[in-house]
Amino acid sequence: MNKIKLGIIGAGRIGRVHAESVSFHIPDAEVIAVADPFITAEGKKFFSNLGINEVHSDYHEILKNKDIDAVLICSSTDTHAEITIAAARAGKNIFCEKPIDLDIRRIRETLKAVKDSGVKFQVGFNRRFDRNFKALKDSVTSGKIGNVQIIKITSRDPAPPPVEYIKVSGGLFCDMMIHDFDLARFLSGSEVVEVFACGTVLVNDEIGKAGDIDTAIVTLKFASGAIGVIDNSRQAVYGYDQRAEVFGSAGCASVENEKPSTARISTKDAVTEEKPLYFFLERYMQAYASEVSEDI
Amino acid sequence: MNKIKLGIIGAGRIGRVHAESVSFHIPDAEVIAVADPFITAEGKKFFSNLGINEVHSDYHEILKNKDIDAVLICSSTDTHAEITIAAARAGKNIFCEKPIDLDIRRIRETLKAVKDSGVKFQVGFNRRFDRNFKALKDSVTSGKIGNVQIIKITSRDPAPPPVEYIKVSGGLFCDMMIHDFDLARFLSGSEVVEVFACGTVLVNDEIGKAGDIDTAIVTLKFASGAIGVIDNSRQAVYGYDQRAEVFGSAGCASVENEKPSTARISTKDAVTEEKPLYFFLERYMQAYASEVSEDI
Amino acid sequence: MNKIKLGIIGAGRIGRVHAESVSFHIPDAEVIAVADPFITAEGKKFFSNLGINEVHSDYHEILKNKDIDAVLICSSTDTHAEITIAAARAGKNIFCEKPIDLDIRRIRETLKAVKDSGVKFQVGFNRRFDRNFKALKDSVTSGKIGNVQIIKITSRDPAPPPVEYIKVSGGLFCDMMIHDFDLARFLSGSEVVEVFACGTVLVNDEIGKAGDIDTAIVTLKFASGAIGVIDNSRQAVYGYDQRAEVFGSAGCASVENEKPSTARISTKDAVTEEKPLYFFLERYMQAYASEVSEDI
Amino acid sequence: MNKIKLGIIGAGRIGRVHAESVSFHIPDAEVIAVADPFITAEGKKFFSNLGINEVHSDYHEILKNKDIDAVLICSSTDTHAEITIAAARAGKNIFCEKPIDLDIRRIRETLKAVKDSGVKFQVGFNRRFDRNFKALKDSVTSGKIGNVQIIKITSRDPAPPPVEYIKVSGGLFCDMMIHDFDLARFLSGSEVVEVFACGTVLVNDEIGKAGDIDTAIVTLKFASGAIGVIDNSRQAVYGYDQRAEVFGSAGCASVENEKPSTARISTKDAVTEEKPLYFFLERYMQAYASEVSEDI
Repeated sequence: MNKIKLGIIGAGRIGRVHAESVSFHIPDAEVIAVADPFITAEGKKFFSNLGINEVHSDYHEILKNKDIDAVLICSSTDTHAEITIAAARAGKNIFCEKPIDLDIRRIRETLKAVKDSGVKFQVGFNRRFDRNFKALKDSVTSGKIGNVQIIKITSRDPAPPPVEYIKVSGGLFCDMMIHDFDLARFLSGSEVVEVFACGTVLVNDEIGKAGDIDTAIVTLKFASGAIGVIDNSRQAVYGYDQRAEVFGSAGCASVENEKPSTARISTKDAVTEEKPLYFFLERYMQAYASEVSEDI
Repeated sequence: MNKIKLGIIGAGRIGRVHAESVSFHIPDAEVIAVADPFITAEGKKFFSNLGINEVHSDYHEILKNKDIDAVLICSSTDTHAEITIAAARAGKNIFCEKPIDLDIRRIRETLKAVKDSGVKFQVGFNRRFDRNFKALKDSVTSGKIGNVQIIKITSRDPAPPPVEYIKVSGGLFCDMMIHDFDLARFLSGSEVVEVFACGTVLVNDEIGKAGDIDTAIVTLKFASGAIGVIDNSRQAVYGYDQRAEVFGSAGCASVENEKPSTARISTKDAVTEEKPLYFFLERYMQAYASEVSEDI
Repeated sequence: MNKIKLGIIGAGRIGRVHAESVSFHIPDAEVIAVADPFITAEGKKFFSNLGINEVHSDYHEILKNKDIDAVLICSSTDTHAEITIAAARAGKNIFCEKPIDLDIRRIRETLKAVKDSGVKFQVGFNRRFDRNFKALKDSVTSGKIGNVQIIKITSRDPAPPPVEYIKVSGGLFCDMMIHDFDLARFLSGSEVVEVFACGTVLVNDEIGKAGDIDTAIVTLKFASGAIGVIDNSRQAVYGYDQRAEVFGSAGCASVENEKPSTARISTKDAVTEEKPLYFFLERYMQAYASEVSEDI
Repeated sequence: MNKIKLGIIGAGRIGRVHAESVSFHIPDAEVIAVADPFITAEGKKFFSNLGINEVHSDYHEILKNKDIDAVLICSSTDTHAEITIAAARAGKNIFCEKPIDLDIRRIRETLKAVKDSGVKFQVGFNRRFDRNFKALKDSVTSGKIGNVQIIKITSRDPAPPPVEYIKVSGGLFCDMMIHDFDLARFLSGSEVVEVFACGTVLVNDEIGKAGDIDTAIVTLKFASGAIGVIDNSRQAVYGYDQRAEVFGSAGCASVENEKPSTARISTKDAVTEEKPLYFFLERYMQAYASEVSEDI
């Protein structure tokens, strides 16, 4: 068996997550090159430890490498569209981190280039590959809960990112709730036709000063007739809170947070359990590996 | 100790619930009379079995009885305002089932009469007295979860009432979600200043034909700055679904449904638990007793 | 309907529990008399508040009262046999708190007197009437878990009784584990044919000095071939720990502790739930009412 | 960084588990050789796919390879002692699957050889490395539950092995409960000084005919004064049941089974959750990786 050969574009946090997850969890693929104009010595060492020694500053070098079957685009959001178009034209299959772009016209342009090229294209909506949300989706597709009527998604981060990040993030809806919008579409199997959004600043005034919100509730109406609601907060002090529930004509299915262990301790003061896994790296590591291996 | 003497006005289902709950759960009070123009022989027997033998068709007889300290108004909604005003003028303390009326001016008129009379007045929002929602409220008032930021209330009935009932009910918001609006105010400790409502017909077309909805999601904005969401369905096939969650700056508190027992059975097919208690009589019996005994 | 008339013999804690539970939870019965040679003024007031004004120091007065259909024997253990025999001869139906006696010959003698008289006789093993253990038993009798193979019972008190009580209690096996032995027989539907007991003193040395143990694990072999284990401790600092599990050829059923509410609070420190209900009065109040009403 | 080089002796199921877990989960180590006199073409392919191409029929070849730092002994039980002694004399660090041998004198002889050689030696008691049992142990060592008084371990396999396996397994206590004995020692931090065992045949008569039992309850007394109980069954139809509880003077800690997902589905029939993970490969994969990486 020949392993599928991958190039990673963008050597930051999420690029490293994918490099590790491919190396340790996906036997049928291997990362052979990485490109990042700002890669540090420490970054090079990280990839070298994984056996990835082909390092470029210009991502076009990766596109030129005939051995590479597919690229993982893990660079900053503003470069996603450009690199996707270039990779499509170079005939590389593409995995691109969300979002494709913040401009709808640019997104359409990008998708057209992908379509014209005939390459495979996947956007990194990892939650679809989480074992819990998959089980939730299965409860819908199996018919166990009947026709979907109400979808509820809770999605709260453990702590807000730096305000500097907030400023260039595209805002809570594009940066954070985008995952929940995708999850709502995934769980409902239907497109959203109406949206009502309610947002506010309750976590950190600096976020408000930067023109963004940190707390929100959004109501959705789906083409199927179902309705849904998403709530987001930039700060759940107890950890990453990622739950969802689908209510239908024949029942209700829900998934809870994952915890480091099932331990429960009862003392004279209280009965305590472990807090949820801290953040997305802990919670979704399995999902990161599954999303990349799905097409292989 | 002299027991507080009560008269019940309205001998239907909820009147009987209160008669039983006072008889069996509230040692310091007793029901001595009941009034209902339509009381049946079977109804008289029900009250007689509880030792309540003073039965009137006209509620004014109860208001005239000097021994009676307080009345429980359990008649149909359209009579609540009239009876409350009459009882207030007769100097009786009043417990009135929700709602006071469907007309806001009539409600104000009623509240004025109560205020002028100086009697005690309580509207039957029983959920405030449920041990679970009380515990949730305690988590807020104790400061354990910090400043309230998001309130989420799930409230679904096991089965819709007859369409004939729907037609005179005042609609889902006045008949059903009214309890959740009250709970939202109770949990937040703040008044609602903005509402966005999304309703639809997914359970039974006849409900739609009657001009009502059966499924709804409502977003609330509180004076405190907090935001909230309520979802309602007239039909949760698994039973009465009554849950709530308060998310704050220092944590999150939630309460779950109650079940007939804690039994869990694992077989080769699945791990199963009991369904939630079927409906409000099962779930809120403790709350009905507590709400009436609260002022005693 | 004529209510069944009861006399209570023994005005201590458990006698009062039954007086209250009959008054408030059993519409078809009423307590009309109480007998206790040591009843205090405060005790008389307690019963009087429940409308029980016939008070005797000598229990024979209760046996002589023709109106009384049945007696609840709630006196100290050493008087159970004598009073049961006298009540049987007086033709009263009998509910007797456990144990009948600490001497096996005396127990046989008592049971013979009951049999000869033809009266109804029930020993107060309240756990059979607890909704949780009933649900567990139902999982066995329904065949859902197949043939019973292993029974596990956890039974721990929140705090040890005074050493003075321990000294006259008959010891942990007769005083405390007796309930678990009964539960094991109830759940298995089979008699015990072999016992191995392991006991030790880990909670309080004074208990050891009094000749008793405070911690024990007992292995049982049933006539059916099933095996079982019971563990007891006189002190579970988190509250009354009452759980059981039945494992069979087709599955496993278990029941958990009951809690004051379902509230769960997540903070930066931990996720906490409520502790179990504190002790038997809280946990088994429903069972006390059910056990007495079972025969009515 | 130079990776630690490992040789695997025994190419059967558990040998493959370790080969995979080292390849995918332990970045600091690599398996470079495997030895098994009966390795099949399919087995060679399995190891080759992991990049392990040095294959021997005689394990001495592995002991002779100067590059190899340590061996994982995954062969049949009757060869463990011999290979351990040879590996120790060859100066290889040793990880050996349980048990060392079924004969206590042979075990002592083996341990002496290990001691004399000065190599590292670990027996494969994987449960100590399971995140749940580790959390349970942490609750003991942190002092959160005070002095240990009672330990309870439930350990049931989803289905019995073939009777042919049973016949050479050493019996339920040596083959299956050995893990629970180790867990009891781990959790208590104390040695066992007294044992009472109760075993029976309830799952499959053929197991009884082979001279073994399939269901057992064992009571333990520890040097510390604590007591404990283990129950085993060869067949829990709902899956691998691996739970434990430690009860102490300051509280109680327990761990539950792991499930494929947290999904819960409520319908008109029941509330269902997922069954436990099926067997040891699913449940303890993380533990297999952790046990081998612990010393690295």
